[in-house]
Amino acid sequence: MAKPKVVVTRQLIDEAQTILDGKKEDLEIVQWSSEKPCPRSWLLENAQGATGILVMLSDQVNEELVQAAGHQLKAIASFSVGTDHVDREALKKRNIRLGYTPTCLTDAVADLTVMLILMAQRRGGEAISKVTKGEWPQMPWHPLLMTGPQIRGATVGFLGFGRIAQASLVRLMGFGIKKAIYLTSKPGKSVKEDHFGLLKEGKIPIEPAQSADQLASESDVVVVGCALTPSTKHMISTDFFSKMKKLAVIVNIARGPVIDTDALVKALDEQQIFGAGLDVIENEPNIQADHPILKQERCVLVPHIGSATIETREQMATESVKNLLAGIEGSEMVNEVEL
Amino acid sequence: MAKPKVVVTRQLIDEAQTILDGKKEDLEIVQWSSEKPCPRSWLLENAQGATGILVMLSDQVNEELVQAAGHQLKAIASFSVGTDHVDREALKKRNIRLGYTPTCLTDAVADLTVMLILMAQRRGGEAISKVTKGEWPQMPWHPLLMTGPQIRGATVGFLGFGRIAQASLVRLMGFGIKKAIYLTSKPGKSVKEDHFGLLKEGKIPIEPAQSADQLASESDVVVVGCALTPSTKHMISTDFFSKMKKLAVIVNIARGPVIDTDALVKALDEQQIFGAGLDVIENEPNIQADHPILKQERCVLVPHIGSATIETREQMATESVKNLLAGIEGSEMVNEVEL
Repeated sequence: MAKPKVVVTRQLIDEAQTILDGKKEDLEIVQWSSEKPCPRSWLLENAQGATGILVMLSDQVNEELVQAAGHQLKAIASFSVGTDHVDREALKKRNIRLGYTPTCLTDAVADLTVMLILMAQRRGGEAISKVTKGEWPQMPWHPLLMTGPQIRGATVGFLGFGRIAQASLVRLMGFGIKKAIYLTSKPGKSVKEDHFGLLKEGKIPIEPAQSADQLASESDVVVVGCALTPSTKHMISTDFFSKMKKLAVIVNIARGPVIDTDALVKALDEQQIFGAGLDVIENEPNIQADHPILKQERCVLVPHIGSATIETREQMATESVKNLLAGIEGSEMVNEVEL
Repeated sequence: MAKPKVVVTRQLIDEAQTILDGKKEDLEIVQWSSEKPCPRSWLLENAQGATGILVMLSDQVNEELVQAAGHQLKAIASFSVGTDHVDREALKKRNIRLGYTPTCLTDAVADLTVMLILMAQRRGGEAISKVTKGEWPQMPWHPLLMTGPQIRGATVGFLGFGRIAQASLVRLMGFGIKKAIYLTSKPGKSVKEDHFGLLKEGKIPIEPAQSADQLASESDVVVVGCALTPSTKHMISTDFFSKMKKLAVIVNIARGPVIDTDALVKALDEQQIFGAGLDVIENEPNIQADHPILKQERCVLVPHIGSATIETREQMATESVKNLLAGIEGSEMVNEVEL
């Protein structure tokens, strides 16, 4: 009997590559051995006859790919927390399992959330830019020069209150915030999962918001940490910004389209809010140098580096390989999407 | 009897200006009413006959000023935590009191410390720069793209372990750091002051380092938070960097000259360390656009904005005015330098 074939669309790291290489006796491994993405044509061609495919966020998993692979395909292992690039229906109707890596990036994203909050409040982007342009020598010191709001005493509002949002709140506790409120798909209802024992601990009030209006009007810091769904798309728009405090900042570490970018540019332009910190944005990565958001000095935009720590990426790679192997062997994946 | 004269070298903010204005009946108030610094000639001319002078960090308090004022001068109130701009001897020999505002900026600087640590680890400056240059569309995603070290599990080493350093550590507790070590002027000796009960709490080991070598070699994050003295000047130099871990970052929120800038540029250039975050630098603010540190993409430099929050600056202004009035009335200042 021929060895099952697996296709891996990228060179992996350390432990992950070692685990994969250890299976060479049992599996036919076809791997795109570069740090750059594989061409679509390479993937479609090599998928033929594959039992499992390990894909990146940049590889579309759709009817085309599934059909190219053939009926023996048992599992897709995605090296990602999101699965927007996967057509779930195409997998479900063929009983193809889908593995992903949602948990190991919590720390990395929560750290970045705090970084972006502070950068937005403390005008970090503007500060760096002034120095690199050589403007520091001409900045006469005065009492309100480069000042921003302080986080002590802030009410932090979370849109979405899952693991990453709660991990961000764990970090914010040391900064002396006053209160946290959160809005989920069930306004006014307490979340069931208290991932880090924060709600039980009760050091500060942590309460469900009744509405988006309440979230907007009471928060000094808004953290967007919800999934992208038809009902969250452009949920943060002109109406929301108009209800925010003038000294409030907004941070998006979830998915770009939750915030209407045009509305954000307008809100910053008209100083309806103090600042913004974005790890994600609509139409990323196609953000050209003349994009209107880049003209807003009170907005910091980084290129979706939420999970970009060495430790996290190593763990994601390792879990992806484990999911791939479990999918082929029919055993339990580290994390599997219920299709 | 003529009203005592006070000179204030800048327009103040809100509460501070209100308190000052409330004294118009009792005092002759001469104030430079602009957000820009007053010319030296204005200060020297108006200081004549003054009983008290409220100065900014940008105003030199020296023999020239004290002599221009005359023998009736009782107090200098400096709107600053540092007093490098004050010739203490010139005041001491005339029994002139010196007020300053050292405590109210702790939160603001500690917040910025965490921001700079995360920016250095997560390659924030480089990330922002790539986006603003329009390079995001051409960044092919790969597993180690834009990755940096994660703070969870880190040993954080403090050079100087006073109030601000300890406040920074309070904030870092939520990020899952493993251990803190600190080096003071008494290597190996525990600090006496436990400003926030962290040492007593004992959640993680917090221990004095025996030497600069130990601080350099064991820390994943080095925070420079000591005073500038002849013995701390250039204390962080080539020798120190050569002992640091390759994935470690260094942050300076104290005074620029503690770090030898040439050595830092070399360490970054040769990838002896991972990154740096600076709020201060030697020869600031005279940092031109072609300064070698600005060519290091792993270094984030902001223009001394440690205390730049609205809340802190308001409190500093208010305390400065209170110190000024106390100096004239001979009552207790909020914070007075022992000369």
